[in-house]
Amino acid sequence: MTFADRFFATLSESGQLCVGIDPHASVLSIWGLPDTAAGVREFGLRTVDAVAGRAGIVKPQVAFFERHGSGGYAALEATIAAARSAGLFVIADCKRGDVGSTVDAYGEAWLTPGSPLEADAMTAYAYQGIGSLSGVLARADEFEKGVIVVAATSNPEGIITQTAMRADGRTVAAALVDEVRELPGSGGLVIGATIDPAAYGLTPERFTGVPILAPGFGAQGARLSDLARVFGSASGQVAVHVSRELLAAGPDGLAPAIDRMAADLRDVTP
Amino acid sequence: MTFADRFFATLSESGQLCVGIDPHASVLSIWGLPDTAAGVREFGLRTVDAVAGRAGIVKPQVAFFERHGSGGYAALEATIAAARSAGLFVIADCKRGDVGSTVDAYGEAWLTPGSPLEADAMTAYAYQGIGSLSGVLARADEFEKGVIVVAATSNPEGIITQTAMRADGRTVAAALVDEVRELPGSGGLVIGATIDPAAYGLTPERFTGVPILAPGFGAQGARLSDLARVFGSASGQVAVHVSRELLAAGPDGLAPAIDRMAADLRDVTP
Repeated sequence: MTFADRFFATLSESGQLCVGIDPHASVLSIWGLPDTAAGVREFGLRTVDAVAGRAGIVKPQVAFFERHGSGGYAALEATIAAARSAGLFVIADCKRGDVGSTVDAYGEAWLTPGSPLEADAMTAYAYQGIGSLSGVLARADEFEKGVIVVAATSNPEGIITQTAMRADGRTVAAALVDEVRELPGSGGLVIGATIDPAAYGLTPERFTGVPILAPGFGAQGARLSDLARVFGSASGQVAVHVSRELLAAGPDGLAPAIDRMAADLRDVTP
Repeated sequence: MTFADRFFATLSESGQLCVGIDPHASVLSIWGLPDTAAGVREFGLRTVDAVAGRAGIVKPQVAFFERHGSGGYAALEATIAAARSAGLFVIADCKRGDVGSTVDAYGEAWLTPGSPLEADAMTAYAYQGIGSLSGVLARADEFEKGVIVVAATSNPEGIITQTAMRADGRTVAAALVDEVRELPGSGGLVIGATIDPAAYGLTPERFTGVPILAPGFGAQGARLSDLARVFGSASGQVAVHVSRELLAAGPDGLAPAIDRMAADLRDVTP
C-alpha cells in the first residue's frame, strides 16, 4: 500500500469531501468557545465527532492551533488522535519545507508512527526544489504516508511565480506536477479550484494517478462545478476541501451541513 | 524603528554571527542529552547561555523542536524566552507560508507581543507570491518584527525553480528580492552563501537596505570569504548563520568556538 492507494480508497469509500478544522477566532466565537488552547481543543474534538461517519478526510489547519503555542499544539495532538481513532484520514495542513536533516525532522514530526503529531499526510512547499523534500518523501514512502506539495494555488498573487518558465521549458507548477507524478505513491498535489489550468500548462492527463487536494471552494469563490472544469478526467482523484462555510453552521448545524455538502458533491462527481 | 533598523543595530553592536539552535539527534548525542522534550529544552537553554555576550543573534530551527510535539514546543518557548531575556535577537526558522487569515495566524503565533512563541523575526516562503504574506507582513510592520523570505538558496535542487523566468522578465528569486526591498523595513531575505548570484540575476545593489540571513557556511560548503563574493558591498547587511560546526563542539566547547568564529568573521567583514 502507498499513500496514493490509501487516499483513493478513502475517496472511494467515504466520498471526496475533506472537512477543514480551522479554529479561527471568528469561528470559535460562532461556536461560543473561548479563543484559548482549551477552546481550540474543544472545537477540534467536536468537529471530529461531527465529521466521523459523514466524510472521510479532515484537514486541520496547523496555523490556527499554533496561535496558542505549545498549548495549541497539545490541542492539535488531541484532535489528530481523535480523528485517526475515528477512522478519518488526516491531512496536517502545515505547508512545511526545508532541506536535508531539517526537512527530515518534519517527517519525523508529522509522518512517523507513534509521533504525537502523527498524521496520514502533510502539506509542503517545494520552493527549494522537489529534491529538497527527499528526506520527508523517503519517510512518507516508508510509512505509507503522503507529502502533498503546493503546486498551483487559488490566490491571485501566486500565479506569476507558479507560471514562471524554467530552463527546461516547463512552468514551475507544471514541473512540480510532473515531479510529484513520478514519485512512488508518496506524493500529492495542492491545486486550487479557481485556477485556469491552461495558464500553468496543466491538463488532466498531467495529474494521472496523483492524489489532489483542492482548496478554493466556498469562501474563495470556486463552485463544485469547477471540479470538472479544472480537473476533467482527474476529478475523481480530488479531495474537495471545504471549511468556513461548514464550520460557520455552528456546533449544532455542522453535522447536517456536512451531510448536505457531501450529497451535493456526490451529485457532481463520477 | 523597523525590523531592519533593529537588525542592523544588532549586527553593528554584536557582530554578524547568527548561531543556530538545532537540537538534531546527533547533536544531542554529542552533548550527552536524551532526545526528548526535556533534552531539547536543556540543550536550548544551555546554548542560549553560551551565546549571550558572544554573538547577537540566535536562530532556533523549529523543525527539531517539533519532532517532540507539544512538549518540544514548550521547550522552544522556554528557549526563545531565555534568548530574548538575554538580549539576543531571535529569528524563528519556521519557513511558514500560506494566504489570508491563515498566514495572519502565523503572524499571531510568531510575531505578536505576549505570544508564547514571540520571536523578533520568522522565516517564510513566498511560493504563493509576496502578496500572500500580506497579513503577516502587516503584523510585522505593526510590532517592529521581521519576515525573512526564502529567495535564493544554497541547495542545488532549488536553482531551477528560483531562476525560472517570470512574465515580467525577472527570475523568481530576483523578483522576490525586489519585492522585499520595497517593503517598509519589515522584510528580509534568505540568500544562500554558496550561490552564484549572476545565475539568479542578483547583484549587491539589488539588496540595498535589506536584512539578509545567509545559511550555507560550514557544513554546507561556504567559507567566510564567500561573503564578499556573493554579497559584495552588501556584506555588512548579512547575518552569517553557523550551526553544526559550533554545536558539535559540545557543551563545554561551544563558548570558545563561538568566540573563535566571531573573531574570524570580524576579520573578513567591513
